[in-house]
Amino acid sequence: MKTLIIVSHPSVLESGSQQFLIQSLPDDEEITLHILEETYPNGDIDIKKEQKLLVNHDRILFQFPFYWYSSPPLLKKWQDEVLTEHFAFGYRGNKLKDKEFGLILAIGLPEKEYKTGGREGFSISELTKPFQAMAKKTGMIYLKPLTIFQFSYMSEKQKKALLIEYQQYISLEQPITLKSREEWLLKELEKTPQETLATEDALFILEEVREVIEDNRIELDELKLHLDNYDDK
Amino acid sequence: MKTLIIVSHPSVLESGSQQFLIQSLPDDEEITLHILEETYPNGDIDIKKEQKLLVNHDRILFQFPFYWYSSPPLLKKWQDEVLTEHFAFGYRGNKLKDKEFGLILAIGLPEKEYKTGGREGFSISELTKPFQAMAKKTGMIYLKPLTIFQFSYMSEKQKKALLIEYQQYISLEQPITLKSREEWLLKELEKTPQETLATEDALFILEEVREVIEDNRIELDELKLHLDNYDDK
Repeated sequence: MKTLIIVSHPSVLESGSQQFLIQSLPDDEEITLHILEETYPNGDIDIKKEQKLLVNHDRILFQFPFYWYSSPPLLKKWQDEVLTEHFAFGYRGNKLKDKEFGLILAIGLPEKEYKTGGREGFSISELTKPFQAMAKKTGMIYLKPLTIFQFSYMSEKQKKALLIEYQQYISLEQPITLKSREEWLLKELEKTPQETLATEDALFILEEVREVIEDNRIELDELKLHLDNYDDK
Repeated sequence: MKTLIIVSHPSVLESGSQQFLIQSLPDDEEITLHILEETYPNGDIDIKKEQKLLVNHDRILFQFPFYWYSSPPLLKKWQDEVLTEHFAFGYRGNKLKDKEFGLILAIGLPEKEYKTGGREGFSISELTKPFQAMAKKTGMIYLKPLTIFQFSYMSEKQKKALLIEYQQYISLEQPITLKSREEWLLKELEKTPQETLATEDALFILEEVREVIEDNRIELDELKLHLDNYDDK
């Protein structure tokens, strides 16, 4: 599965969260990083090239800061110019059909403010309706967004957990299941030479493994409960 | 009451609907028309000038084509750069508080597609959440949007009705009531020299007046019904 990460940020080099995410990306031919402001500093988008990029990938991700509850201007320009009729929608416009589409949002306020009565007053599910509608119109499968609330206040431990979530969001088969997360973690553990593990990292990964196993137990318990109910009938 | 109409369109001179609306605007010092792409062809926004414009008006309207369920890129840039902390929100950021905010949206598909199960799948109320959230954050009063569906398919009669609706949206006190619409129509009738009225225009205005009177009658009938119910108790 090939993933295209389209990053948009008015000053991406100065963004702590964007740099953190971008620098974490593995050197993997299945993953294409595409920073719009770096590719098109004058804003003149090469439409044919962009459409070809889209066609050549299976999962399309928009990664951007959620200023004023929407995308940066260059990403909006990209949408308006690249997602044309007969390519992305309309008669024979099926080039994006059945691809996966996801949002990776850097958000300035804490999650609890994004609900009725909170300071922002609307949920992320409500505020991203325009992107959900875009996915619908183009026939793409809308993934649950990866939301990053208040990156600058995150602890080191939270940042490490974010990295795992980010890399799974980019490369794991959807829907992300307990089984796929387990397999991903085991694969990553195998890749890591035992002696290079700093103690703190090792502890962190062990903790992740423990969490997965706990989730596993809960799921198994639920299954058992269902089976018990079934036997009773 | 002073109204600021901020128009954004990637090629405003070529837009039939935008030209139709813009050319209908009366020469009125209470109304400021501000076309972003004409003022800032290079996209370099004069932030101080824009903030001053906002402060000097009571009703702020965004007028744009609803491409990909959002604003054109330059209007998004304007939002990101002009609506700064300490001006539009945050500590002492109360410069827009209690102003009215409205959207004038040119929309390509018919209204019936904008609902669950329709081709677009989402309502205009859902798709405009980011603007509702912006109004909330800046303390502005969010007006019911003026939605213009499929302008290019409108009949002459529908276009004339749109002009009346547009001019009322720009200048009438909110909420727009039957009484204020009646007064507006009577004022416009008084301003029109009888002999300049083309027959068709005269008929159209008479029809509008008739419609208002009919609405009036329905409202009065309902009131009467309520009173009757009250007497019965």
